Amino acid sequence: MNEFDFIRKYLHRQQQDKQLILGIGDDAAIIRPRSGYDLHFSADMLVGGTHFFPDVAPADLAHKVLAVNLSDMAAMGATPRWALLSVALPELNKDWLAAFCDALFALAARFGVKLIGGDTTKGNWVFNVTIIGETPCGKALRRDAAKVGDDIWVTGQPGLAAAALDVHWGKVVLSEPVFALCENKRLRPEPRVALGQELLPLAHAAQDISDGLAQDIGHILNASAVGAEINVDLIPTLSALKQQSTVTLSQLRQWILAGGDDYELVFTAAPTQRKAILAAAQKVSVEVTRIGVITTTDQLHLYDHKGNVIQLRQRGFDHFG
Amino acid sequence: MNEFDFIRKYLHRQQQDKQLILGIGDDAAIIRPRSGYDLHFSADMLVGGTHFFPDVAPADLAHKVLAVNLSDMAAMGATPRWALLSVALPELNKDWLAAFCDALFALAARFGVKLIGGDTTKGNWVFNVTIIGETPCGKALRRDAAKVGDDIWVTGQPGLAAAALDVHWGKVVLSEPVFALCENKRLRPEPRVALGQELLPLAHAAQDISDGLAQDIGHILNASAVGAEINVDLIPTLSALKQQSTVTLSQLRQWILAGGDDYELVFTAAPTQRKAILAAAQKVSVEVTRIGVITTTDQLHLYDHKGNVIQLRQRGFDHFG
Repeated sequence: MNEFDFIRKYLHRQQQDKQLILGIGDDAAIIRPRSGYDLHFSADMLVGGTHFFPDVAPADLAHKVLAVNLSDMAAMGATPRWALLSVALPELNKDWLAAFCDALFALAARFGVKLIGGDTTKGNWVFNVTIIGETPCGKALRRDAAKVGDDIWVTGQPGLAAAALDVHWGKVVLSEPVFALCENKRLRPEPRVALGQELLPLAHAAQDISDGLAQDIGHILNASAVGAEINVDLIPTLSALKQQSTVTLSQLRQWILAGGDDYELVFTAAPTQRKAILAAAQKVSVEVTRIGVITTTDQLHLYDHKGNVIQLRQRGFDHFG
Repeated sequence: MNEFDFIRKYLHRQQQDKQLILGIGDDAAIIRPRSGYDLHFSADMLVGGTHFFPDVAPADLAHKVLAVNLSDMAAMGATPRWALLSVALPELNKDWLAAFCDALFALAARFGVKLIGGDTTKGNWVFNVTIIGETPCGKALRRDAAKVGDDIWVTGQPGLAAAALDVHWGKVVLSEPVFALCENKRLRPEPRVALGQELLPLAHAAQDISDGLAQDIGHILNASAVGAEINVDLIPTLSALKQQSTVTLSQLRQWILAGGDDYELVFTAAPTQRKAILAAAQKVSVEVTRIGVITTTDQLHLYDHKGNVIQLRQRGFDHFG
């Protein structure tokens, strides 16, 4: 199988889309934009050994490669529409590719995303997806839109993926069922796309948690020139994880506040929207929790339920930190 | 310097653009499309050791990373507008990055391209650019638009980059000045963007030569369900290269027909457009040459000026061939 056979066999799939004038198979794909909509563009590169283990199952990898990009669309309330996939692989292994592509197209179909292009080259396990989404003109959730007095909300239970990763690295031991729950969050993060869309008329600023809650909310604070107070004891976690005898409170908080890879959302909204936000979250079956408030300072204050300040060893992930 | 310092210091540059609603620094960039224009999307991934030598000068690498993508826009007659750059680097070396980014932004500015996003991660020398361009709705040059009786044209002198590469691989020796000319084509291909735009009302099908003329024109033939006859002696080459005593005719033809990496264009157009095409090419200072004709067969026939059929060892580059 050569490069062109691979593209023909695995990547050309029937994809109905009125705006897709020309898909895979030319020098570039052609999209006809809809009037009244802005387009969103984001790219994420996943590298073997850095972002995933060499023995990752192809279906899990395919899920993650696309999900992290879907999450960027979710964070702006955008509807993901199209994606380009560039891959560097040491060889074209049929079974591996079939499993990878099936999972990729399954997730893409579930979110209404069409694969419109990319590149296939020889190299050592690198995957880059560029994703394109839509929002009604001027309506996107932006990092620079947080307002003083906003509630701070978080989706799901951030930190579980980081706990699973620490098991892999031999830093902690978890019981098998608790590890399985955490590992599933690490391998199969569920992008909060539907919630993001629901939040468009309700929320001010939003951001997905890819590098750690404390670090990622920092981007909102910087962009909006505001501060925040967060009661870390309000951030939901898995009670079974909390109850593991091997897990200290300090370790748990480190995962919750500085663990990336869950791809939950953190967002801000006026207190008048509380009921509407809870209703929207229920509609799309996503847990949302108020964890703090936007302040006039330019600082992030983390404290526990007794009011004690929480110090972190590390605020989040930095590739070159 | 960490990942965020890098992005702030090297990638945030003032970029005026009325359609760019939000640039680098959020979960995704936002573009407001223009009414009456289609958008083109293409991605190319360059991998160290596969696409470039480990000791490549950062400015040369930056040029190539963007130029190969600009070339995809040129091949459809599209105006390149925006780009996303994902990089995997083993470390953030300030001098290297400064040289890389300066060259990248210089080329981008020359073609009116704004950098709107991407990703920075740890890994082993991988660069992926996704490029976005515009054409007036329905006017793009497509691979499936070649018509029987069309002239086949080529820009520049394809094959020089392949000759330079064979010098690096020790397969041939060239005189220093001839090697320098070939090496410059390999390191600094000049995307034929202006010509592509001029060809929009004149040409039918077009394609850039990235993997070799014979293979790349094959994509036009397949997509258009036509054949072609090409007189290989009509394809222009550097006379000084032809005159090298170390270069056989067979070797020269292999470079011309199967050497990629020059990023010249091959295109087809009705014979009635000959004068207009020559005038357009002169206007943008690009050499164009008629080398053959589109036929009713589904075959590519290559022959010399005596009418002898030319056989190739390999039609072009295939990463997994």
